Amino acid sequence: MPTPLTDPSLIARFAAITGAQNALTAASDIAPHLVELRGRFRGESPLVLRPADTEEVSAILRLAHETGTAIVPQGGNTGLVGAQTPSPGKGEVVLSLSRLNRIRSLDPVGQTMVAEAGVVLKQAQEAASEKGLLFPLSLGSEGSCQIGGNLSSNAGGTAVLAYGNMRQLCLGIEAVLPDGEIWHGLRALKKDNTGYDLRDLFIGAEGTLGVITAAVLKLFPEPAGHETIYAGVDSPEVALKLFRLAQDFCGPSLTGFELMPRIGIEFTTRHIEGVRDPLDAPHPWYVLIDISSGQSQEAARTMLEGLFVAADENGLIRDAAAAETGAQRQAFWTLRESMSWAQKPEGGSIKHDVSVPVAKVPEFLARADKAVLGAIPGARIVAFGHLGDGNIHYNISQPAGADTESFLARWEEMNALVHAIVLELNGSISAEHGIGQLKRDELAAIRSPVEMALMHRIKQAFDPRGIMNPDKVIASR
Amino acid sequence: MPTPLTDPSLIARFAAITGAQNALTAASDIAPHLVELRGRFRGESPLVLRPADTEEVSAILRLAHETGTAIVPQGGNTGLVGAQTPSPGKGEVVLSLSRLNRIRSLDPVGQTMVAEAGVVLKQAQEAASEKGLLFPLSLGSEGSCQIGGNLSSNAGGTAVLAYGNMRQLCLGIEAVLPDGEIWHGLRALKKDNTGYDLRDLFIGAEGTLGVITAAVLKLFPEPAGHETIYAGVDSPEVALKLFRLAQDFCGPSLTGFELMPRIGIEFTTRHIEGVRDPLDAPHPWYVLIDISSGQSQEAARTMLEGLFVAADENGLIRDAAAAETGAQRQAFWTLRESMSWAQKPEGGSIKHDVSVPVAKVPEFLARADKAVLGAIPGARIVAFGHLGDGNIHYNISQPAGADTESFLARWEEMNALVHAIVLELNGSISAEHGIGQLKRDELAAIRSPVEMALMHRIKQAFDPRGIMNPDKVIASR
Repeated sequence: MPTPLTDPSLIARFAAITGAQNALTAASDIAPHLVELRGRFRGESPLVLRPADTEEVSAILRLAHETGTAIVPQGGNTGLVGAQTPSPGKGEVVLSLSRLNRIRSLDPVGQTMVAEAGVVLKQAQEAASEKGLLFPLSLGSEGSCQIGGNLSSNAGGTAVLAYGNMRQLCLGIEAVLPDGEIWHGLRALKKDNTGYDLRDLFIGAEGTLGVITAAVLKLFPEPAGHETIYAGVDSPEVALKLFRLAQDFCGPSLTGFELMPRIGIEFTTRHIEGVRDPLDAPHPWYVLIDISSGQSQEAARTMLEGLFVAADENGLIRDAAAAETGAQRQAFWTLRESMSWAQKPEGGSIKHDVSVPVAKVPEFLARADKAVLGAIPGARIVAFGHLGDGNIHYNISQPAGADTESFLARWEEMNALVHAIVLELNGSISAEHGIGQLKRDELAAIRSPVEMALMHRIKQAFDPRGIMNPDKVIASR
Repeated sequence: MPTPLTDPSLIARFAAITGAQNALTAASDIAPHLVELRGRFRGESPLVLRPADTEEVSAILRLAHETGTAIVPQGGNTGLVGAQTPSPGKGEVVLSLSRLNRIRSLDPVGQTMVAEAGVVLKQAQEAASEKGLLFPLSLGSEGSCQIGGNLSSNAGGTAVLAYGNMRQLCLGIEAVLPDGEIWHGLRALKKDNTGYDLRDLFIGAEGTLGVITAAVLKLFPEPAGHETIYAGVDSPEVALKLFRLAQDFCGPSLTGFELMPRIGIEFTTRHIEGVRDPLDAPHPWYVLIDISSGQSQEAARTMLEGLFVAADENGLIRDAAAAETGAQRQAFWTLRESMSWAQKPEGGSIKHDVSVPVAKVPEFLARADKAVLGAIPGARIVAFGHLGDGNIHYNISQPAGADTESFLARWEEMNALVHAIVLELNGSISAEHGIGQLKRDELAAIRSPVEMALMHRIKQAFDPRGIMNPDKVIASR
């Protein structure tokens, strides 16, 4: 068990590592690091450290290990499960990686980039783009989330279908272990079968096994042609058929396939400035399809047209609009990416980030809707997401005019309802957001003792003193 | 330390689990399990067990754990680093997975297949193909290697460029832990961020952490169009330029890019029945390019033609032949896939399976050639492989007429020469074949103590009694 940090002389020793100006102790300086985006978790901490480089991270962890001080790594603080929030009353140090924000190198021939943990995702995307390359990870929070957090949460986003999640987008990492040792694993190799997969253990571990300080990221050729289509469809079943058709037709050129419900379009057009529905009439469901071609704009257009003809022959599309300009394309995606935030003005929203086998998405939606509406008549279900990955953000907005607090009081009850269906369909209760604090106990409840024991053994092997982000992912023992 | 199995009553207890007919104790029955393909390792074992299912595997491991008996899992016995060969004089049991050979299910809509460890790769490919789907893993040994071995070695092969290696082709696994517990991790999810990545720890662990008994494999739409081109080029530098062009031009439709030297074509056409050089004149180097289209044969052809025009404009290709029929396409690939075996009739061959960052392949080849020819004038270097992955099988055939034994005696010396260059280029000494026995001590010598310590801690956490495939990947402690 870690020792709560209260001793001023120990605080001073930590502060000496980063220098006083990067050791925040004033409550007002610390405050922004204690609350996460949705305000579900409120933490406490006596000290926020902002190291400049890997060596300072190493020195901090060495001291933490020696003194049994708990460390909570934090990136852009955009995580949705409370993994980056220090637990109240535990005297945990927040380790902000924001100053490790250099792109150490970019190899246009090898198509790789070495980025430090604190590099903001958008900055990484832009650095690639300047060389005519693509770093495909794309998230709603890309303007503030950081590469270290993306790695620690194995971030997904809208381009997973074609490019994979963060685990697939990373070739090697540099990490500081809980005892301060540095693991130099910055390999830029596409193939390397030399022992256990340490990289993928640190990725997705949410800072509980050590601190990722830098990574080799995979880059891709910027597509020469792009088409984005926004289409109205009858139902999730039809959307799934259209997905299969698009997958058969475009193969790996299918770079996005998102599902959205009518109510999501209504919320978004109502609350997000500048957003409008590209189609005149309303439709029950919508899909957003992204096609990329390495060859040319014409090739992408040809693919799009072929897909349209085939979809039409099969009666799959009610109406559709293709983006004619880059700005229009951006507008279509803004519609999709603001869907989560557009729920806020509608009152309380109970969130789920689940996945099921792709073919089971329609069944999941039908069963979950029935269960939720049975429990809360009038609940407004905004279920949207990455159909091509089987990943649905199954969000429930309160009935119009209902009391927000009493609605939100039913969060766990709704989670239990929805997750039970997910588990019956062999799905996941956290497709891309991770476990953090939010789902820790639920994970322990649904996973087999064998699997939980393995996770505890790994935690113990890497972090025997239990100082790394305690009580996140798995409970301290 | 495990206890050598000698006690006849304990042998009988193991045999009772599988039944006597699947517990081989006669030397002649055991013999085929003791030698690997290249004959570099010769093992010993008192007992080969052939369990029928996961439950029998579990019972075997429970007894092994209780009695401290070492277990060496074995699939198709095609591995090239001796991971599947029991150590001499240690009384280790060989656990053959060959009878776990069922395809438990195939979901054409979800595009997944649940295959047991003993399913032969070709069988898995054919099961997918019967449903119009593709399981893309493709290796020279696909007619006899097994899915369990493919997973345990994180197999690569010729389609990694577009589809990834085994780690990317597997969504979930079922594994028996060293104490006999079964981990039911057969999830068919594209996204699942719920805790540590146990799956990727078992994959590539070469049977040292437990026994993989089944896996959910990813399937893909069978491409509608295919083009395969065989082209003569001036040098690896030019081949790399051509690769970049093909990658830009075809994007993810580029499904293979192999490099071959002239001498490899000579050996192959000389020794492998039915193989001929598709081009009239000789060229210094060759590439084999595979293009797939989800749309149509015409689309693949259009891509090929566009690539040809661009390559020609840049003066990259000396001469080329495109496969006009499926049989021709097969013939081109046979030329490539028989390249390793075609060296055998030429005498001793010292092998390497290395990778470097893709852009460094020409530099690696130039430097390695110089070093090797400096040490062994007249050595015939057959360096071929997956240029698009930076993975070169750098094989050295003995000088014509040289004494095979004294040439092969220089194996370690050549390894040291070649691997030193690989490491200077931040490459890997085992790109796809793994570590096994062959490279265990070398791995320990080149990796940092930090990394080796992490691997030992994982081994200890999973297999505290050290009974799983001892002394493979890392040395027993």
